[in-house]
Amino acid sequence: MVLLSGGLDSATVLAMARADGFDCYALSVRYGQRHSAELDAAVRVAAQLGAASHRIVDVDLRAFGGSALTDDRLEVPTTGPVPGAIPVTYVPARNTVMLSLALGYAEVLNGRDLFYGANAVDYSGYPDCRPAFVEAFETLANLATRAGVEGHRLRVHAPIIALSKSEIIRMGAKLGVDFSLTVSCYRAGNDGAACGACDACVIRRTGFADAGLPDPTRYA
Amino acid sequence: MVLLSGGLDSATVLAMARADGFDCYALSVRYGQRHSAELDAAVRVAAQLGAASHRIVDVDLRAFGGSALTDDRLEVPTTGPVPGAIPVTYVPARNTVMLSLALGYAEVLNGRDLFYGANAVDYSGYPDCRPAFVEAFETLANLATRAGVEGHRLRVHAPIIALSKSEIIRMGAKLGVDFSLTVSCYRAGNDGAACGACDACVIRRTGFADAGLPDPTRYA
Repeated sequence: MVLLSGGLDSATVLAMARADGFDCYALSVRYGQRHSAELDAAVRVAAQLGAASHRIVDVDLRAFGGSALTDDRLEVPTTGPVPGAIPVTYVPARNTVMLSLALGYAEVLNGRDLFYGANAVDYSGYPDCRPAFVEAFETLANLATRAGVEGHRLRVHAPIIALSKSEIIRMGAKLGVDFSLTVSCYRAGNDGAACGACDACVIRRTGFADAGLPDPTRYA
Repeated sequence: MVLLSGGLDSATVLAMARADGFDCYALSVRYGQRHSAELDAAVRVAAQLGAASHRIVDVDLRAFGGSALTDDRLEVPTTGPVPGAIPVTYVPARNTVMLSLALGYAEVLNGRDLFYGANAVDYSGYPDCRPAFVEAFETLANLATRAGVEGHRLRVHAPIIALSKSEIIRMGAKLGVDFSLTVSCYRAGNDGAACGACDACVIRRTGFADAGLPDPTRYA
């Protein structure tokens, strides 16, 4: 089970899981994000990288908002990441909700491995991207489900958590990820064109530059 | 933040939280359950017990099914609970998803206390109703959110986890819960009438009998 957002991190994670020989069931979540371009991207990425299936699950996080990604009254900042601060693009408990959905779907499919594209280096402002969070979720997963009762073990893999953005890009490129299919921008148009100014765009562009690879992103 | 299903357990938990002086924000989840009667019941229970607000969030667990409550091809059993087995009415990761949603909403409201009506006595077949699960979720909650970064602590309360059904009923009755508003039946009609034969009905009816209180359930 691979959580696939449509961005480049989770695309690379899918490629890594495939390279490790896993049959990959991709899951994306339509949670009320600002645009559909990233879900369209997830569909293309799942196909390009040979996922066994790709499913999109709906959950309405706009019901309580609290983030620039789920409340249109809050602006996506374009003034650059602020070190040490949790940005307004943090969506309360979103990653916990998405992992929980992946856990449920994995249980239905008898899957035992969840892949999560968290990255603690270039997004350290998000509490749910830290290694301690991933470990706590793995512990929870094994108590929450049949796994804990029936004695097999679920594993939560976060293979890029300690990589820099440029290392992720180099890894993905090596494994054949077509990054032109991915959308990272928080403010992308529904055609997938990137704004070039939000934190996600800045970190992505810097990542390609640091990796010494051409940036295939289509900017608006 | 109180997860409110419309059944008698979570109604009693809401009454206990109110009695302890908490302002209670109730959250129910429309996850694709077989009938709407329990959500209608949750609306009435929230009002009767003086919740400060009540919100219903949508998440589509029918996208992957895997339970008699989220896949109409699976029958709800009426042959009685099987000790030690996980019943087909167990919904993979549902309670983890619901707690994650409550966590997100609590974070938006700056709430620090989550109330969860899990019960390990009369439903020991559900892995996500055990004390170890609740503890693991509390650990996760504090790593997943601003709480862990900003140094305050979230608590997950499961005040009825060790009570028998009859003890829960006596507690709720003492605190003024109108159990006639609640719906426990897995196969209730949309008018809330109970089937009388599923596990939830059997355990509920036995609970009232053991508590020595009249059963206000409307049976079909």
